[in-house]
Amino acid sequence: MSDSRTAAWDRVKAMPQATLAQLFAEDEGRVDALSGRIGWGEGEDAAGIRFDWSKTHLTDNLLSAFEELAEASDFPAKRAALFAGDAINVTEGRAAEHTAQRGSGSETSVEEAQALLARMQMLIEAIREGALGEINHLIHIGIGGSALGPALAIDALTRDLAYVDCHVVSNIDGVALETAFAACDPATTMIAVASKTFTTIETMTNADSALTWLRENGVTDPHGRVVALTANPEGAVEWGVDETRVLPFMESVGGRYSLWSSIGFPVALAAGWDEFAAMLEGAAAVDEHFRESDGRDNLCLRAAFADQYYIRVRGCQTRAVFAYDERLALFPDYLQQLEMESNGKRVTSEGEPVDGPTAPITWGGVGTDAQHAVFQLLHQGTHLVPVDFLASIAPGDALNPAHHRILLTNCFAQGAALMAGGNMSADGKDPAREFPGDRPSAIILCDDLDAATLGALIAFHEHRTFANAVLMGINPFDQFGVELGKKMAKDIDGGAAEFDASTKALLEASGLG
Amino acid sequence: MSDSRTAAWDRVKAMPQATLAQLFAEDEGRVDALSGRIGWGEGEDAAGIRFDWSKTHLTDNLLSAFEELAEASDFPAKRAALFAGDAINVTEGRAAEHTAQRGSGSETSVEEAQALLARMQMLIEAIREGALGEINHLIHIGIGGSALGPALAIDALTRDLAYVDCHVVSNIDGVALETAFAACDPATTMIAVASKTFTTIETMTNADSALTWLRENGVTDPHGRVVALTANPEGAVEWGVDETRVLPFMESVGGRYSLWSSIGFPVALAAGWDEFAAMLEGAAAVDEHFRESDGRDNLCLRAAFADQYYIRVRGCQTRAVFAYDERLALFPDYLQQLEMESNGKRVTSEGEPVDGPTAPITWGGVGTDAQHAVFQLLHQGTHLVPVDFLASIAPGDALNPAHHRILLTNCFAQGAALMAGGNMSADGKDPAREFPGDRPSAIILCDDLDAATLGALIAFHEHRTFANAVLMGINPFDQFGVELGKKMAKDIDGGAAEFDASTKALLEASGLG
Repeated sequence: MSDSRTAAWDRVKAMPQATLAQLFAEDEGRVDALSGRIGWGEGEDAAGIRFDWSKTHLTDNLLSAFEELAEASDFPAKRAALFAGDAINVTEGRAAEHTAQRGSGSETSVEEAQALLARMQMLIEAIREGALGEINHLIHIGIGGSALGPALAIDALTRDLAYVDCHVVSNIDGVALETAFAACDPATTMIAVASKTFTTIETMTNADSALTWLRENGVTDPHGRVVALTANPEGAVEWGVDETRVLPFMESVGGRYSLWSSIGFPVALAAGWDEFAAMLEGAAAVDEHFRESDGRDNLCLRAAFADQYYIRVRGCQTRAVFAYDERLALFPDYLQQLEMESNGKRVTSEGEPVDGPTAPITWGGVGTDAQHAVFQLLHQGTHLVPVDFLASIAPGDALNPAHHRILLTNCFAQGAALMAGGNMSADGKDPAREFPGDRPSAIILCDDLDAATLGALIAFHEHRTFANAVLMGINPFDQFGVELGKKMAKDIDGGAAEFDASTKALLEASGLG
Repeated sequence: MSDSRTAAWDRVKAMPQATLAQLFAEDEGRVDALSGRIGWGEGEDAAGIRFDWSKTHLTDNLLSAFEELAEASDFPAKRAALFAGDAINVTEGRAAEHTAQRGSGSETSVEEAQALLARMQMLIEAIREGALGEINHLIHIGIGGSALGPALAIDALTRDLAYVDCHVVSNIDGVALETAFAACDPATTMIAVASKTFTTIETMTNADSALTWLRENGVTDPHGRVVALTANPEGAVEWGVDETRVLPFMESVGGRYSLWSSIGFPVALAAGWDEFAAMLEGAAAVDEHFRESDGRDNLCLRAAFADQYYIRVRGCQTRAVFAYDERLALFPDYLQQLEMESNGKRVTSEGEPVDGPTAPITWGGVGTDAQHAVFQLLHQGTHLVPVDFLASIAPGDALNPAHHRILLTNCFAQGAALMAGGNMSADGKDPAREFPGDRPSAIILCDDLDAATLGALIAFHEHRTFANAVLMGINPFDQFGVELGKKMAKDIDGGAAEFDASTKALLEASGLG
């Protein structure tokens, strides 16, 4: 760690700790100072998202100290390298070009991304026009980054109307695939096989079983129903997919950042191309904000300042995200991968041990459901958990307006209650009914949850994750942590190696020993 | 805290810390000593679950110290009080009688529970025989404890075949209810309204909207399609449900422990009474084990010893649960409520501040999916996370056996890899490919995931949660932590109170100010 980084961290850690109540009492302009907006569109089409970080413990002095930390961590240069398409994924020697999918990046990569997306658009139009016959169902097979993004976007954007009925299958457990089979008519079902390497064992095993199911149910050319989404097009062709139905994406687009590439195929097919394009445009608005704004005015960086404060000053091992919107039910799962796989590391980009804790465990759920399940611990437990609330001003439903009003008032009331605390007993003295308060939360309030907004929400978190990585000095774009378990599973299956006594006993008990 | 409790905790905390590798090397009998089984049935019907805690840091000396802590915490007396139906929920002055639903408890309560279950069985038979006309769909409306148990059990047990198509709706967000409407034919849909108090705002608002939907779609007597599941039968009748379709449960059955009561109605309707009864029997087998076994031989208590060790000695703020079974996809959510709402507390049963951290954040997911999303952090992050793996020896699917074999080998490999560590680079020196190892996990391996096993799994965690509460000196059966947010939401809706500047600004931005 450089001397200037150490000095900035020392300054952050030495700051006096005021309570939220004190911070609000001392500064009438606090809400304005710590709220910001990212918007897009013009006139009647203008829309955006409000980011209110005032109910966190950030102060003017803390923000200044974190701005010094960002400078000392080369944030401006690293951000520039991200957008320039430099090889910032140093351990794997390649760039991280998800923003090129949205139009920000090196000229070559932006052009390549656009050409690949145009190819995807053409295939989707052909399918909609009947090139594969009548298609009513899509089984999308992929795992991790090839599943979580499509599942989230389909769930968020196609509840009212989908061109096809989509089922995202990820688990190697055959029960997952059987559940999809039970809901689909093989005569009108197509299969998308999504794997960056086209070697992922879960995906290839599920794909084989899906083809068997089609064949056993009267489809004479099952491979003719497959679309491949991959950065290894040769592998897909070799496996049997006709080149015309292979949709490649660039090697420099990481799995957990790949929704914007051909991995988004099922979203574009189910919701329509315009919706998919709107999602890219919403993300592009955030790219522009992240690229053009500096210091605390950069809302992704500001959020990372708060994240780092809670991780490294307050010792929080988790952060929670509650989406007060049923359409974002899968958002916490999506963020969990994005943040934990990117920043759950123990060495810096240079291979040195990190100088403090890295990514917390991201967890959460849907409001108001979570209020009846886990908020007990948030209000009265012993662990400090910084919370993000997400909500949309416009309702997603057309029922009695009481539904959406109660949803929003509950969302706002939870943030207020976490901060205020109090005692709920008649005499104000029962310790079991005491709430200590001073518990932080942030709120991300969308004008409306449409495709552009979803794209913006995801891009905001991508850049927040990147900003956190820079402040911690780590490379967010590799994931070597998944390799050892994979290797040991292969070793077990191959009978190749010696294992500990517990693993041996488990294999024996399962008839696999 | 009593002197004997302090002394026992001091002894626990002063123990030498060996690595898992050392513990395995030192003791060839370790796996046997730290594995146990809870079984039920006889002959060909014999089945059960293996609990292997050998890959945690528990040692013979630690177990002895924790046994002293259990004695000093009055564990035997408190367990006896639980089963006797004493008012162990001291802050609310009542018993916690979920085990009475399974046949263990005071004679009066067991009889009452059986009578109420018999009434539920009769109603289910009547519905199956056509008392409500043709019924193909059930919309089960409830939230928290009235939703998570039914959703889990329906998902786990009725994938192959369900008598009715069930939709569990909890969220106040109208999108949730609209999604259920879209999947149901109003002419053949019945509604279950599940609320212990019959006043829960989400549930009553959703119930009103569901009746409106039935009425607007040609059902002349919507109330005639409703079954009420509640501890407030008068309230249900007053709301308009005929007494013959009100299924009461006892006030002493807590919301998050209520799956065994009439809250389990949709499970019994969809899966059949025999399956529901088998679930109770599996739970009863665990009740017997928990009641009859002492010290480390009590597997629920042993698990709580490990939980306390990681919370209070190793400073873990979370514990993770990964179900390597698609049918248990909702199990981590269920456990999250059970553990966090029960033990996320800051005062003891006597109203004194707790003497250490309480419930960690329970999080997790489904394997193998989670390997591609969050295991990076488990293997290479900076936070120690104790992990539980759940799996079933018998497959849930009938596809190529490779699916289940790969599922199980991956499950076992992850536990082995977390413990062993290693370096995945060619020269064994790349720090980015280094795995420190010594990361703990436990495994719960079922012979087969049937209804009895699901009941046993849930009951195991209920008692583990109770045991943790006793070791921390807290009351796991109240949940006052949810009250403040509820009150503030009402205040906002009523325009009654003054709020902080952030909340005011959010209300204004949403048109609710």
